[in-house]
Amino acid sequence: MIYRPVAGGVTAPKGFKAAGVAAGIKDPTRKELALIYSAVPAGAAGLFTANRVKAAPLYVTKEHLKDGRAQAVVINSGNANACNGSQGLKDAKAMAHEVARLLRLSPENVLVASTGVIGQPLPLVKIIKSLGQAVAALSEQGGRAAAEAIMTTDTRLKEAALQFELEGKVVTVGGMAKGAGMIHPQLATMLCFLTTDAAVTVPCLQEVIHAAAASSFNLLTVDGDTSTNDMLVILANGQAENPAINKRDAAYYLFREAVLKVCTELTVAIARDGEGATKLLEVRVINAASREDAYLAARAVAASNLVKTAIFGQDANWGRIICAAGYSGAKFNPDRIDIFIGTEQVAQNGSMLPFSEAAAAQALAGSKVSILIDFNEGTHEATAWGCDLTYDYIRINAGYRT
Amino acid sequence: MIYRPVAGGVTAPKGFKAAGVAAGIKDPTRKELALIYSAVPAGAAGLFTANRVKAAPLYVTKEHLKDGRAQAVVINSGNANACNGSQGLKDAKAMAHEVARLLRLSPENVLVASTGVIGQPLPLVKIIKSLGQAVAALSEQGGRAAAEAIMTTDTRLKEAALQFELEGKVVTVGGMAKGAGMIHPQLATMLCFLTTDAAVTVPCLQEVIHAAAASSFNLLTVDGDTSTNDMLVILANGQAENPAINKRDAAYYLFREAVLKVCTELTVAIARDGEGATKLLEVRVINAASREDAYLAARAVAASNLVKTAIFGQDANWGRIICAAGYSGAKFNPDRIDIFIGTEQVAQNGSMLPFSEAAAAQALAGSKVSILIDFNEGTHEATAWGCDLTYDYIRINAGYRT
Repeated sequence: MIYRPVAGGVTAPKGFKAAGVAAGIKDPTRKELALIYSAVPAGAAGLFTANRVKAAPLYVTKEHLKDGRAQAVVINSGNANACNGSQGLKDAKAMAHEVARLLRLSPENVLVASTGVIGQPLPLVKIIKSLGQAVAALSEQGGRAAAEAIMTTDTRLKEAALQFELEGKVVTVGGMAKGAGMIHPQLATMLCFLTTDAAVTVPCLQEVIHAAAASSFNLLTVDGDTSTNDMLVILANGQAENPAINKRDAAYYLFREAVLKVCTELTVAIARDGEGATKLLEVRVINAASREDAYLAARAVAASNLVKTAIFGQDANWGRIICAAGYSGAKFNPDRIDIFIGTEQVAQNGSMLPFSEAAAAQALAGSKVSILIDFNEGTHEATAWGCDLTYDYIRINAGYRT
Repeated sequence: MIYRPVAGGVTAPKGFKAAGVAAGIKDPTRKELALIYSAVPAGAAGLFTANRVKAAPLYVTKEHLKDGRAQAVVINSGNANACNGSQGLKDAKAMAHEVARLLRLSPENVLVASTGVIGQPLPLVKIIKSLGQAVAALSEQGGRAAAEAIMTTDTRLKEAALQFELEGKVVTVGGMAKGAGMIHPQLATMLCFLTTDAAVTVPCLQEVIHAAAASSFNLLTVDGDTSTNDMLVILANGQAENPAINKRDAAYYLFREAVLKVCTELTVAIARDGEGATKLLEVRVINAASREDAYLAARAVAASNLVKTAIFGQDANWGRIICAAGYSGAKFNPDRIDIFIGTEQVAQNGSMLPFSEAAAAQALAGSKVSILIDFNEGTHEATAWGCDLTYDYIRINAGYRT
C-alpha cells in the first residue's frame, strides 16, 4: 500500500500545531475558534467560492495569499462575517493582525476564515480575547480540537491524514473540513484546510488543489446552495525534506494523489454528515462521451430533491434518476442508458428491466446507497457524492437563523 | 377592466367541449383520463420539455403539430408513459388513433399527453376501453372534469379563463394545468392546455405561447426537477370570428396579454399547490442591469432549498436570499443590493439593516410571502414563483413510486 492512513488531521504532518477553543461567539459551551500554525513559513495556495457575494475573510485571505506564503490560519465558527460591509473587512483583518501579533508573524502570513450565520456583525472583541488562549493551546496533538472548533451544523468532526514515501522521505498530508449544509459543487464548497510537510512549489500546490477539488469537493452536493464562505487552503512547510516538487514528475503525481485521497475522504465525510442525512449517496456515471457529460449527470442525480427523497424512502424509483440525468445538460442517448441501484440493474436501454424489488430494497436499506449509470457512449466517468433529503433537513433549516 | 375572468376553464371559449373520466390506470376511484375537443379544426402550437429524456406522447404530439392543426387533445394521469421504449411510442400513437376513430378525425389532429410515474408500461387496454366513455361525456361544461382528471399529486384542480373584446368580438382564452412536483423553470414546466376561440395564425400562436411561458411557467419552481413530460399546448379555433391575428399589431398584443394572464394565474396556482407547500413564495427582482440578471436571481432565490425552508420556518433569514442571488449567475454589485420581506426592509447596500422582527414575522406568517430584491443597477425586472419546502414534501416524495 502506497498511502498509509495516520491519525492527527492537520497536525499529522511535521512542524504543524493546532488548537480549538471556546470564544462565546454563538454558543459559549462549544469550541468556536480554531488556529493552525506551522513552525516555519509555508508555501500556501487556496480556492474560493464562486458565489458573487463573498464573505470578508475571503478577501483578506486572497490578499494574504498573493505572496504564496503563510504560517498560520485562524478560523471562527458561529458567524460567517459575510454581508457586513466595510466593518466585516476590518474585523477579518483585525483577526489576522491579532494572531500575527501574538505569534510574532507578519499579518500577511496569517489566513482567515469564518463560517456560520450570514449578515450578523462579528463579535470581534470576544474573538480577540480568545485568541491568546488559542495560541497558548497550540499543540502537535491539536488537530482534533481545531476540527471540532470549525463545526457548525456538522454532527461529526471531519479530519483525515495519510503518509507515503517520496524519494526516501516520509511525507504526510493532513486535512480537516466542515460542511453539512449550503453545499453544492462549484469550486471549493465548504471550509477545508490542508497541511503537508512536503516541499512543493506554490504553482504546483495551486495546480494540485485545483485538480483534487475538481474530483472531490466539486462533485459533492448537499442542498444545491453554494455558500458565501467556501474556501480550501493548503499549507506546505517542507519539513519532510523531500526534494521540492516543482514539475509534473512522478513525485508530483504521488503527492497529488495523496491530496486527492485526503480531499475525497473529507468529501465523503461531509456528504455522509449532510444536514439531516441518514444515507450517503454515491452516484457514478460511466462510459460517457466526455468527462464533462459524466460530471454533469452525476452531479444532477446526486443533487435532485426527488432522487434524494426517494433514497430516504428507500424506493427504487429509477425514473427520477433518468429524469435528472436528462435535464443535467449531459449529452447521452436515452435509449442506451443502463441504471443500477447497488448491484441490481433496474433499467436497460432506457427502459424498465424487470428487477427484484427485494434486492433493490436491500441496496437501499444500508447507510450507503450506490447508483451506477452507464451511458454506453464512451470511456469517461465521474463520481458524485450527496445524501438523502429527510424530515431532519427541514427541521434543521426551518429553525431560527441557523 | 380590459380582461374579465370567466368560469369554464378550457371549455369557456366557444366551440370547445371537454370531459374527464375514470380509467383505472392507477387509482380506479379517480378521474384519470381527460379529453378536449374543438367543434372545428383549430390552429395549434406547443412547447416541450428541455429534458433530454422525453416521454413518448411528446414525440407523437410534436409530430402531429407539424401541420399546425389539431382538433382534440387526450391526456392521461397516473402514468407518464416515459422510458417505455418503442412500446411507449406505439401506446401513445394508439391513444391518438382511438380518439381519432371515435371522433372521426384524422389521427394527426389528435394530440396526446401523459403524466404520472416514469418507467411503467402504460395500461393501454384500460385507456382504450375508457375513451368511449370520455367521448360520450364531452360537454361544454366539461372543463372542470378534465382539469380534475389531469391531477396527480395536485391537491387542487387548476383552471382559468378570461374574456375581452377584440375588434367588436368577444374573445375567450381558457386553460387548465397540472403541477405540484418535478417542476422547475425550463421551457414548459408542467402540463398546460390552453384553448381560445380567437382566430390566430399558427406562427403568431407559437410566438405568443413562447412569450407567455417565458414570463410565467419559466419562472416557476417547485423542486428544481424538470420533468420528462412537460408540455404546453394551445388550440385556437377561430369561433370568435375576429379578424385573424397575423402580425404584431394591437390585437396581437391584447391577445398575448390575455394568454399571459391565464398562464400567470395557472403558474401561481401551481406554485401555491407545490408538493407539501404551506406558502406561496413570490420573488421579485427589480432594477437589474438586464432582464437575464433579474430572471436568474429571481429563479435561484425561489428555488433555494435554504430559502424555502426558512420561509417554512417563518425566519427572516435574508443571508440565504443574498447568498442564492450570489450564486445565481446574475451580475450585480453585492454592496448595492437592498432586500425586503413583505414591506419590511431587511438589508440595505448588502448589509443588515436593523429591522423589526415583529414586522418581518408578520410578513412571513401569511399564506403568501413576497421577497423583493432591488439590485439598484438598471431598469429590468422579473418575478419568480415558488413555495416553501416542508415536512410534507418529504413525506409525499419519500412515499413509494409517486
